[in-house]
Amino acid sequence: MNSNDTESQTVRILGIDPGSRITGYGIIEQGLNDCRYIASGCIRVQADYFPDRLKQIFDSVLEIIEVYRPEQMAIEQVFMHKNADSALKLGQARGAAICAVQTADLPVFEYAARQVKQALVGKGNAEKTQVQHMVKILLGIQGELQIDASDALGLCLCHSHHRQTALRIRRSTTR
Amino acid sequence: MNSNDTESQTVRILGIDPGSRITGYGIIEQGLNDCRYIASGCIRVQADYFPDRLKQIFDSVLEIIEVYRPEQMAIEQVFMHKNADSALKLGQARGAAICAVQTADLPVFEYAARQVKQALVGKGNAEKTQVQHMVKILLGIQGELQIDASDALGLCLCHSHHRQTALRIRRSTTR
Repeated sequence: MNSNDTESQTVRILGIDPGSRITGYGIIEQGLNDCRYIASGCIRVQADYFPDRLKQIFDSVLEIIEVYRPEQMAIEQVFMHKNADSALKLGQARGAAICAVQTADLPVFEYAARQVKQALVGKGNAEKTQVQHMVKILLGIQGELQIDASDALGLCLCHSHHRQTALRIRRSTTR
Repeated sequence: MNSNDTESQTVRILGIDPGSRITGYGIIEQGLNDCRYIASGCIRVQADYFPDRLKQIFDSVLEIIEVYRPEQMAIEQVFMHKNADSALKLGQARGAAICAVQTADLPVFEYAARQVKQALVGKGNAEKTQVQHMVKILLGIQGELQIDASDALGLCLCHSHHRQTALRIRRSTTR
């Protein structure tokens, strides 16, 4: 947690759920008492040549940062993966997204999937649909919400939750 | 192959062998009849926080490009990996390196390990030490050469070989 980060401050959080074909993103604004939905969507990369897909992810993330001006970024921390081939593809997409975020000088916060589930549903083994349901309720989103965008917004909310807790602990210990 | 690329042209090639801890790099200059060694080395990333390591790779690759001004880049094409966890780490490092190269507008050429071995040793299943031995002979390098830097130079030489063949085919078909 940045020492300049204060509880009274409104902060814009970018969440990213990277993938080699679809990268979900979401932006929320965390105020003093609530979280406000700003935007969400999916970066769909079409290029056949894999290095070009990585560049599309990198450029698109930079563009999203330019448009919505988030100040902090949350991404899923991946420890293990079932399949080595898909882990390699996911890793590259994740590398491209993180480099774009760091090029824009945003601090990166990593959360394990179980932390997101715990923060939103209260259970570390909750289903993805339960997370999606809670994202929609907490941000007042009506209608369709793509699963990749929902996962990205879930990361934003998890970070917001952890940030508030950390700020409260800091406040109580500095009193 | 870029249509502006001509056989008479001297071209600087950057080879990169990415890894989450050590990323090897090499630069050669391909003239009309020979390949000249320019530089090689290893980017060693120290940061404990993985996103910071990716940024170090990204920044270091950009710095190497700024110093040595290569015009084309060769990287190993990875299809499969034995271990999902190391595939994920390698993928992220590879994504960071490719994004840096593409940010500097260099075309990226991918070669499978067996293509590098075939081009240098004449056998797709050659040992890494045989590749290293040939890299040293072909570029007239005396003394120690780290394996990661040697792999990166092997990629440069493989690309140079493929480029020359492609240019010869183009010349013979346009006559």
